[in-house]
Amino acid sequence: MEQRSGCPINAAVETLGDPWSMLVLRDMMFGNRRHFRELLTGSEEGIASNILSSRLKRLVVAGLLTKPDTTRGQRAMYSLTEAGIATLPVMVALGNWGLDHRDGTEELRVRAELMRERPELVEGLMDELRELHLGIPRPNPTAPLASAELQAAYERMRH
Amino acid sequence: MEQRSGCPINAAVETLGDPWSMLVLRDMMFGNRRHFRELLTGSEEGIASNILSSRLKRLVVAGLLTKPDTTRGQRAMYSLTEAGIATLPVMVALGNWGLDHRDGTEELRVRAELMRERPELVEGLMDELRELHLGIPRPNPTAPLASAELQAAYERMRH
Repeated sequence: MEQRSGCPINAAVETLGDPWSMLVLRDMMFGNRRHFRELLTGSEEGIASNILSSRLKRLVVAGLLTKPDTTRGQRAMYSLTEAGIATLPVMVALGNWGLDHRDGTEELRVRAELMRERPELVEGLMDELRELHLGIPRPNPTAPLASAELQAAYERMRH
Repeated sequence: MEQRSGCPINAAVETLGDPWSMLVLRDMMFGNRRHFRELLTGSEEGIASNILSSRLKRLVVAGLLTKPDTTRGQRAMYSLTEAGIATLPVMVALGNWGLDHRDGTEELRVRAELMRERPELVEGLMDELRELHLGIPRPNPTAPLASAELQAAYERMRH
């Protein structure tokens, strides 16, 4: 893909600067949704089927996701690549901005609040994602799971 | 504006998730371009006039920029709001991703590299932008200007 300029901010915007790609990546990371149907039906924002399909294709071409070849009838399971996992700090920065400058709902804000207070949860989640999606063992396998802590905080607010 | 969900990442994506808004903000912050014509002619990515016009309007409505009322023939000068200045950490996170996962040109990469190495430059630049756009004096007025350091690094690479 020809880039509009040699600027690294532009390069990231060319890949991530649309209204849906970051949300698909968010749902893969925080909801562990790896199949088309889960991503479609679980979407808080109600992503449309044709948009989800085109975003997933673009993210594969851009090198942020991989999709194994499947035979007819098999459900494809998407995996994050290292470049996909590395969008988490961008997501955290976007979340910080949203926390400060937009309203939201407490149960959908609490994970962003936790990650802002405790940056080690961001590192921990990236290590977990590398294990889950790339098969790279976590450097600290006995440490508590960041994902479990984030999920527990979300569940507490939800009920 | 009705939000698609109460998630802070989504809220930020609704405001910043398009192929141009972050680049307009980048050029205001790093190039101190505050008039339509400068933003148009200086754009590395060749933004089109109608797109620039619509992005500026949207950023004003979203509360990231202000534009004073002007009488006929006067050139409007845009200012960043606090919410606009607060997108700098998002820009830095995008730049870090671009540095690691995309090619670029050295003169357009060097500022992102510097900000990654020295986070105090990001804080310093935000303080400068608050002074320049909002009239809030810098907390440390005798400290060297982050903008000057970033600009000097860019000029060195350019020549």
